[in-house]
This record gives sequence, C-alpha cells and structure tokens, in this order.
Amino acid sequence: MKVSLGARTLALPMPAFLVGTYDANGRPNVMTAAWGGIVCSEPPLVAVSVRPPRWTHAGVLKNKAFTVSFPPARLAVETDFAGIVSGKDHDKFKEAGLTAVKSDLVEAPYVGECPVVAECRLHASHELGTHTLFIGEIVDVKADREVAADGGIDMRKADPLVFGADGNYHKLGPRVARAFSAGKDLKPKS
Amino acid sequence: MKVSLGARTLALPMPAFLVGTYDANGRPNVMTAAWGGIVCSEPPLVAVSVRPPRWTHAGVLKNKAFTVSFPPARLAVETDFAGIVSGKDHDKFKEAGLTAVKSDLVEAPYVGECPVVAECRLHASHELGTHTLFIGEIVDVKADREVAADGGIDMRKADPLVFGADGNYHKLGPRVARAFSAGKDLKPKS
Repeated sequence: MKVSLGARTLALPMPAFLVGTYDANGRPNVMTAAWGGIVCSEPPLVAVSVRPPRWTHAGVLKNKAFTVSFPPARLAVETDFAGIVSGKDHDKFKEAGLTAVKSDLVEAPYVGECPVVAECRLHASHELGTHTLFIGEIVDVKADREVAADGGIDMRKADPLVFGADGNYHKLGPRVARAFSAGKDLKPKS
Repeated sequence: MKVSLGARTLALPMPAFLVGTYDANGRPNVMTAAWGGIVCSEPPLVAVSVRPPRWTHAGVLKNKAFTVSFPPARLAVETDFAGIVSGKDHDKFKEAGLTAVKSDLVEAPYVGECPVVAECRLHASHELGTHTLFIGEIVDVKADREVAADGGIDMRKADPLVFGADGNYHKLGPRVARAFSAGKDLKPKS
C-alpha cells in the first residue's frame, strides 16, 4: 500500500554536480546542483537547472559555457559548501581549498580535485519556472589517469557523491548487475 | 593529470528510471531511462529523454502523461530487461513479473513493486537530436508506507538502483554527510 507524499521534487538517485563558470569579472565560481542529468546521446548533452538569481546563472549566459565536475565522496563538505553560499560574496574555490582549472575548450573552469569532469558549450536554455534549464553540449570528458579504465570509468576510484531524497549525501555502493546484459535472462524462450 | 575521454555522455551518478506509459492500444508499457533527472522546483518537474522510435515515445505523446518508478536494487534484472526489449513486441510488465498499477491522477501505469514512484503530466517536450526531452510535472509522489520516513524517504529501505559510468548497476552506499549543513564549517569566520 502506497501513501501520497504530494507534488514534490524527488528522484532516486540524484546527482551532486559541481557547475563551474567564470563570472562577469572573469572570476571562477562553482555551484552545487542536484537538478540535472544527461539528456541526449547525439549530440551528447547534459542538463543542469539553475535559479536566475544564482551567481552561476549570469556566468553561464555570459560565456555560453559551463563545466560539470563530479565530486568524490571525500569532497562532501566542499560540495555542500558550494551549494549554501553565493559566488557574489564568496570566492568558493579559495574558501573550500579547491583548484579552478581553466578549460582549454570552453570558457569555464573545472574543479581540479574532482577525478572526472565534463566541459560543456551552452546548447540551449529553457525557462521552466523557478529554474532555468541549461543544456550543454559535452565537448570533452576528462578523467584522472588512474580513474579512467578501458575507455570508461572505474566507479570505485571515482567514488561519486550521490544525493539522496533523505537530505543526505551518500557514497556509491557495490555493483549489483551488468547493464544491457543481466536482463537477457528474462527474454521469453521461443 | 587528466586524460581526455572525448565528447561522450557521462555523468556520475546516473539514475535507472522506469518510465511507465499506456501505448496506443491502452496496454501498459515500461522503459528504462538513465537520461533524465529533476529540472525545476516550482512547478516540480522531472525530465526523461526518450528516442522517438521507442514504444514509450508514442505513449507519452498520446496520453500526455508518464510515470517514473524508482527501482530498488533487488529489481536490477527486471530494470535491465525493460531497457533491452521493446514494448512493440513484448508485454514487459508480464514477462518481467511486474505489476502495472493504474495511476488515479494521470493516464499512465507505475510499477507496483517499486517502493517510490512519481506520477507526471506532460509539461513540455523538446527535440534534442537522437532524443526527445519529455518534461513532466510531478503531480504526486507515492511511496510504500514503510519507506516513507518523516515526510521524506528512508534511503536504506528504498535501496535505489544507480547506473554507473562503468556499464553496471550499483547499490547506494552509506550516508557520508548532511546536505545544507556539512558545508557550514567552511564558511569564513568573520
């Protein structure tokens, strides 16, 4: 028996993206976003939603670019910090002890301490209500050499932070099944 | 030192949403989608991306509705199955042993075995390339009584499946920090 929890924003799981931009003064800024995800295979597109008053919003529009850095569990405190203060008043990279690395492909910085990052060119934006949906074309994904595995990602080493519907950040747990494979056993035998 | 992995669809973490629809014949169908996420707070909106040839695509457009069921780790095989066969040729609910529960709010079925589900009315759609971005307004979230905790979700009981950039489904791991709280320690003391 299910109970109604009402009309609310809830998905399982949610990410904790670190969105990197340069502001109007060319200063690096970073913001945490749980609203977003991959939205298209070709072109490769990722979406992040940002409220218009956020410092990041103007930065995305000015430079038509942003990055998404995927924080590991060891950066939970820094990730949370980037979500609760504004780049208007804070040099979040400096105060959190994080390194702003200038992308050589788009006009935006990424978080050097994150083992995997995506560099994005603004592809489209849509006003949705409280949030603007920024859709970025991923022009490159970069990963620390030891985290890149056979052209993919070693998830144990990337150790991505996951945002839960309980208001907590979580670690990723163990692998349970192989995608595009485990389900074959359920195909009816002809 | 980071290495380039090229322009590709990669985010950490990704979800494994089960998107429920009725097809043109009123038959329940379900499809796995890792492309999507929450995109707006007010109205509460969730996005899922679907390729136009997919059976689900016509179902969303016909009924202007879909559901998103959040599969627990114990349904990894069923979730994968729903991603590798088509509703055109398969009664996926029946073949996977899942229960199609008719929503009383929107014209779409959800997966009864999933402890948490969201019922959505189609709000907007955008053609992005290979995929159509369907943005749904969440009209209700429903959860099994034992999974709903203090108005939120007990993540250990919900045990959501997480899609990794290594091509595997994972379990959620332990909590590492409290959101909107842990980062306060980094605020400069004035």
